[in-house]
Amino acid sequence: MTDDDLAAPTTDDPLTVFKEAFRRHAAGVAVVTARDAEGTPVGFTATSLASLAAVPPLATFNMARTASSWPAVAETDEVIVHLLGLRNRDLARRMAGPAALRFAGDHWTDGPNGVPLLDGVTAWMTGTIVERVPVHGSAVVVVRIGTGGVGEDDDALLYHDRHYLRPVHLDD
Amino acid sequence: MTDDDLAAPTTDDPLTVFKEAFRRHAAGVAVVTARDAEGTPVGFTATSLASLAAVPPLATFNMARTASSWPAVAETDEVIVHLLGLRNRDLARRMAGPAALRFAGDHWTDGPNGVPLLDGVTAWMTGTIVERVPVHGSAVVVVRIGTGGVGEDDDALLYHDRHYLRPVHLDD
Repeated sequence: MTDDDLAAPTTDDPLTVFKEAFRRHAAGVAVVTARDAEGTPVGFTATSLASLAAVPPLATFNMARTASSWPAVAETDEVIVHLLGLRNRDLARRMAGPAALRFAGDHWTDGPNGVPLLDGVTAWMTGTIVERVPVHGSAVVVVRIGTGGVGEDDDALLYHDRHYLRPVHLDD
Repeated sequence: MTDDDLAAPTTDDPLTVFKEAFRRHAAGVAVVTARDAEGTPVGFTATSLASLAAVPPLATFNMARTASSWPAVAETDEVIVHLLGLRNRDLARRMAGPAALRFAGDHWTDGPNGVPLLDGVTAWMTGTIVERVPVHGSAVVVVRIGTGGVGEDDDALLYHDRHYLRPVHLDD
C-alpha cells in the first residue's frame, strides 16, 4: 500500500469509516455504578473513560441515552468509576450483560454515598457529575473525582474489536 | 488485601486518587490534526479518543485549553483523527514533542479540507467539530465523522503509565 492509497478515502460512508477506524482502536475497560431515584443499583461497562484534567481532577465517559443506566446517570450526581484489571474480565462481561443480573451476587458493597462499590478492581474513584452534554441520542458525562482507592495491581483489561486483551511492554 | 481494605478510601486527596486510578488505565493512541486561522498545521497525541455514537457517527476527545493546538481547535471546524498502530510510535512521540517539529518533514500530506493527513497510520477519519464543552481549563470536543480510510493493519498502539505498549489476545 502506498501513501497515495492511504490518503484517498476508502469510503465516503461515515458509518463505515467510523466502524473501520474504531476497529483499530483499543481501550481500557471501566465500570461506572450509581443508584437510580428508587435506590436501585445500576452500572455499565464503559470503554470511553478518559481523563480531562488533573487540576481539578476531572474525567469523562460517554453513553447512549437509551442505555438502561441512563435514567440513573441523568438523575443522580454521584457515581463510582472502577478501573478493571485482567482478573476482572468476568466482572466486565457481567456488567455488559443483562441489567437484572449485574448486581445479583455479593461482588459489591455500599461505597461512599451508598453508590455500589465493586470488589476486587484495580482502582476506583468517586465522581460527582458536573456536566451532562446531550449530543443526538448520546451524552458525554463529566465527573469531578473525589475519594477512591486502589486494589492489588494487575494488567489493565483492554477491549479491542470485540475481544478482551492485555497490554504487554515493547522491547524498546 | 481484603475487600474491606479495598472498600476503604486509601486517600482523600482527589489528585492522588485521580493519578493512582489513571495509572491503572490503558488507552489507545490517536493523533488529531487541524490548521489554525493562519493555515499553519497543528496536531497532538490524544489518549482520550472515544466513540460517542454510531448513528450518527460521533467521537470525542479531551484537551487542555492551554495546549498549543487549542487555538486552532477553537477556531476551525475541521480536524482529522488518526488511529495509531505499533509501527507509528515514533509518530506518536513526535506529535507529543515540541510543536515546531511536529510537521517538519514529509510524513504528512494535505487531506480533505486541507487538514494535515499523516502517512502510514492504521486508520483516519475526518471530523467536523459539533461541540466544544469548556470545563475549567480543559475542553471536551465532539466531532461528527465524515470520510476516512484505513492503512495496513497493525497492533493498536497503547499508552499506559507513561509507556507505549501493545495488546495481546488472552487464551480464553
